[in-house]
Amino acid sequence: MLGCGAIGSLYAAHLSRAPGIEVWAVDPWPEHMAAIRESGLRVTGLADFVAPVHAITDAADLPLCDLGIVATKALHTAAAVAAAVHSLKDAGVVSVQNGVGNEEIIAEHVPRVMRGTIVTAGAVTAPGVVRYDAPGDSWIGPFEPSPARPDEIELLADLLNQGGLTTHAVADARGPQWTKVVFNAATSPLSALTGLTVGQVCTDPGLRTEVDRLIDEALTVCATAGITLTRDPRASVEEAIREAYAHKPSMLQDVLARRATEIGVLNGGIAAEGRRTGVATPAHDAMVALVNGLERSWPGG
Amino acid sequence: MLGCGAIGSLYAAHLSRAPGIEVWAVDPWPEHMAAIRESGLRVTGLADFVAPVHAITDAADLPLCDLGIVATKALHTAAAVAAAVHSLKDAGVVSVQNGVGNEEIIAEHVPRVMRGTIVTAGAVTAPGVVRYDAPGDSWIGPFEPSPARPDEIELLADLLNQGGLTTHAVADARGPQWTKVVFNAATSPLSALTGLTVGQVCTDPGLRTEVDRLIDEALTVCATAGITLTRDPRASVEEAIREAYAHKPSMLQDVLARRATEIGVLNGGIAAEGRRTGVATPAHDAMVALVNGLERSWPGG
Repeated sequence: MLGCGAIGSLYAAHLSRAPGIEVWAVDPWPEHMAAIRESGLRVTGLADFVAPVHAITDAADLPLCDLGIVATKALHTAAAVAAAVHSLKDAGVVSVQNGVGNEEIIAEHVPRVMRGTIVTAGAVTAPGVVRYDAPGDSWIGPFEPSPARPDEIELLADLLNQGGLTTHAVADARGPQWTKVVFNAATSPLSALTGLTVGQVCTDPGLRTEVDRLIDEALTVCATAGITLTRDPRASVEEAIREAYAHKPSMLQDVLARRATEIGVLNGGIAAEGRRTGVATPAHDAMVALVNGLERSWPGG
Repeated sequence: MLGCGAIGSLYAAHLSRAPGIEVWAVDPWPEHMAAIRESGLRVTGLADFVAPVHAITDAADLPLCDLGIVATKALHTAAAVAAAVHSLKDAGVVSVQNGVGNEEIIAEHVPRVMRGTIVTAGAVTAPGVVRYDAPGDSWIGPFEPSPARPDEIELLADLLNQGGLTTHAVADARGPQWTKVVFNAATSPLSALTGLTVGQVCTDPGLRTEVDRLIDEALTVCATAGITLTRDPRASVEEAIREAYAHKPSMLQDVLARRATEIGVLNGGIAAEGRRTGVATPAHDAMVALVNGLERSWPGG
């Protein structure tokens, strides 16, 4: 497990419950990793158990692994995978990160890659403790240009299911991935640039026009690239208004904390696929330019 | 003079130097108006003189005037003019405000209106004192649907010239006005949303694409409406990079102070003219939605 924040911790803890599996996690946060080494990784919230996980801060200490999971922020993908190449050189490696474009980066370092999409949510509440906030299915499948073997994909799905995280091994993992990305890219940057919650963004008449424009552009990219979404993004918008009105997307939380955002793999990922397929994406380009500009205005930006 | 901030103060002070003219200024800022009543209105910076100006805080105290100048923030136009109607009912009234759309509001209250555009800049540095920072020509002309009389326009231009502010009376004042508006609308909201200076916005590759898109949309609106700009907006962009790189547009200053911006008469004015003439302005619509959304996120917004 490369990256042991909220998602890495939840997946490491659940995976360790599958019979016969040994989980190694690497993350640069020394207090979190020390707490896991000393007392195990505690899951609270929707579950309540303590999992044995080998927790280290230096990827050089990783053993040779059969499977790899990348759970860092998108910004750290290349560095995290490069540091772990010795461990993953014969592994099937999946991304459970936000956005599109992470698999391309992973594939520059390891031979066999899976696309992964998750909707699970949680938060590390103290060193060694992760709160499990929201369950949800996960989908994994081959990364088309350098796919993991089918048996690796099935094995990872089986282990996650045995560990308690419902996971589907699928032949084309782009649909679930883009379904999540299109909704996030149509709402998160508008929230990040205005400070409004996802519900406020989706119900403000002016901003809703932008949400719809971003969705339309992304749907054109999907249609041209042959990607079939698993759900109408506008249904996700309506659901967010009903069930997550006051939610502040992680991109807004990043902006409020003046951390680099994941705009590059959200709107930037859609724009890149647009360029690849010859579809103009001016609305997504504008979001990328504005959020990158905002990041640049910060001290050290 | 309705509104006696930096621009209202500079124009009131210079006008009072024209022979035989009496200048009344109204503004709700009590300290500034009291200082002007007691010691006159002092101009520093590019000029150095003290002008006699009748300074009041309640428009009800205005006498009947021959000419009116509206120098409030665009947001306060309707209230300021409505409160002064008794004084301006037989006056030619000009706007020296930012943006487009102010004349339409003024014309709802008084019969004869002029379009005005200024590039003068300054700042009120203490009650009763205005610093004159940047000179520049002014242009005034008829507001087409309910124009001031030609002799009123000439009179105001003469008085301003006599007072020391170079002013041109023109037959079509839309060109100078839109020349200023297009540049401002293509740069200010990008600066306001990112926190970057005008020079940073215009030299950032991603944001420069947005600047160019905003200019292109505005030029299509101008072409359709028969408005001839007096200068290529891209020449203004290059000049801003050279001569005003570190400038923070007033819209960014408004955002930093969490004051309502003038987005409605900048990008909103261009979008409104686009709707009137059947030209789509998605990039300007996006700026309006984002800046309005940002304002809405503030306490009391």
